[in-house]
Amino acid sequence: MIEAVQKTLQQYLADQVQAVERALDKWTPAESAEPQSIHTAMRYSLFAGGKRIRPVLAIAAAEAISDCPAGIEDAAATLELVHTYSLIHDDLPALDNDDLRRGRPTCHKVFGEAMAILAGDGLLTLAFEVLSRLPHRSAEQRIHMVQELSSAAGTVGGMIGGQVQDIEGEGRQPTAALLETIHKSKTGALLRASVRIGAIYAGANAEQLAALSEYGEHIGLAFQIVDDVLDMEESSEALGKTAGKDQAQQKITFPAVYGLERSRSMAEEERLAAHRALRIFDDRAERLRQIADFIVQRRA
Amino acid sequence: MIEAVQKTLQQYLADQVQAVERALDKWTPAESAEPQSIHTAMRYSLFAGGKRIRPVLAIAAAEAISDCPAGIEDAAATLELVHTYSLIHDDLPALDNDDLRRGRPTCHKVFGEAMAILAGDGLLTLAFEVLSRLPHRSAEQRIHMVQELSSAAGTVGGMIGGQVQDIEGEGRQPTAALLETIHKSKTGALLRASVRIGAIYAGANAEQLAALSEYGEHIGLAFQIVDDVLDMEESSEALGKTAGKDQAQQKITFPAVYGLERSRSMAEEERLAAHRALRIFDDRAERLRQIADFIVQRRA
Repeated sequence: MIEAVQKTLQQYLADQVQAVERALDKWTPAESAEPQSIHTAMRYSLFAGGKRIRPVLAIAAAEAISDCPAGIEDAAATLELVHTYSLIHDDLPALDNDDLRRGRPTCHKVFGEAMAILAGDGLLTLAFEVLSRLPHRSAEQRIHMVQELSSAAGTVGGMIGGQVQDIEGEGRQPTAALLETIHKSKTGALLRASVRIGAIYAGANAEQLAALSEYGEHIGLAFQIVDDVLDMEESSEALGKTAGKDQAQQKITFPAVYGLERSRSMAEEERLAAHRALRIFDDRAERLRQIADFIVQRRA
Repeated sequence: MIEAVQKTLQQYLADQVQAVERALDKWTPAESAEPQSIHTAMRYSLFAGGKRIRPVLAIAAAEAISDCPAGIEDAAATLELVHTYSLIHDDLPALDNDDLRRGRPTCHKVFGEAMAILAGDGLLTLAFEVLSRLPHRSAEQRIHMVQELSSAAGTVGGMIGGQVQDIEGEGRQPTAALLETIHKSKTGALLRASVRIGAIYAGANAEQLAALSEYGEHIGLAFQIVDDVLDMEESSEALGKTAGKDQAQQKITFPAVYGLERSRSMAEEERLAAHRALRIFDDRAERLRQIADFIVQRRA
């Protein structure tokens, strides 16, 4: 642990990202597997250099409970499968109609709409298959993780529900209540589930799981606020996706409701609240604390 | 059992369909649940009077193992959730571009493309959530069912893979080998999984599961052959979906490869093979035998 803490956060993140990439590569059918076209499309979107923040959160949460549980990167990878599916579908012409994602043309721009729809479906389905086949965990733990992931990705208070509210909110009066509802489901639920899945994998008790869920909610909120702020402040090149789209599409964002200055201070409040949620943990939770800081200080 | 067998097949099917509708209604969020729009779209496609052949197969397979296991209709309903999601996505303009399904305008015609994509995503996600929360079965059985469903719905030898091959096969030379590959994954995998999920739910042993899988493969093939034949022979009104589309889209079908006469006799051969696969079962498998007959003799 002492050696681990001495690693810089950058090095830690790079190591975890590498472990997650290997897990994604292991579980995702090869491009040579039939039908090759869809596996090529799935891998195109999956291996486009994302930050892998959700898997890293799952791993760091697991490490807060127990030293580096074997195979945690496999469970963590399922969060990236679901996140990537949601990006592919959200970018479709019928939804956000985006041409650029993670610095490259979006999936449907390269492979066509039909393949993008099916590649998204394939990644979502694969996430549940991976959870169901995790070799190192009991059936109870695996089914608990399926519950977490399906509920966080679902329509009631989950990611799909949030995407619907986001689309329907376009052009409507940006209120604090609507903003909170959209955010909690669209981004918050999966970030919270990332932390919880890591905790469940590592065998967290009820008190630990509750504390980590609270941490997950605060960093989820911080993450979304910073995302909204960056969309206004940074270039498309820095973000790897089309910047300024929120305003162009009249999305309900934190800067739209609270202004830039207040949004920044809200992100800082959430960062501190995330730290407080971790008070029952010793220095095993140090990476989670550093990640909370990183989320608020990042520029892309 | 004697009383049950005395019921006509029609009455049996009607009773099971009713049980499945109730289960679907119980697990699918109400139209009043937020966001209301997506739950309305999901329910529109779900409750459109389908034959519910996959859930009925799951129930009948479970009954072949043990008398009417409690809650089997919940597990069975997940097959209809996945089937309906696949219809919604397949009907999209970017894919088969169909306006009519189960006798009504398709989901995207009524709710728009964005909502249809998300409603499909929601139904797929819900299927795994329902399996993970089944109240009457062990974690081992639930996770086994998640494995079955995700693999049958997936890209390698599963439903999504079959849909890709079907699209890519349009206009290509219709060969027997290509036809078999497409069918086995596009329709066969989920029909086979229906029988297997019912068997797993009821606690089948390895010999029973193997026999029922074989049955599932034969009736899956029979089902697809008859579907292809009906697409050429029947009206859109009788089918509740656009008839003659296979030929118009130059799909690779059984009549296209073998002609109508040979296709009909192949369906009959598969029906007999399905009966043979059930030879280790007593009259508890009578409904499965009747369903095999029904699948080949149906006109819609």
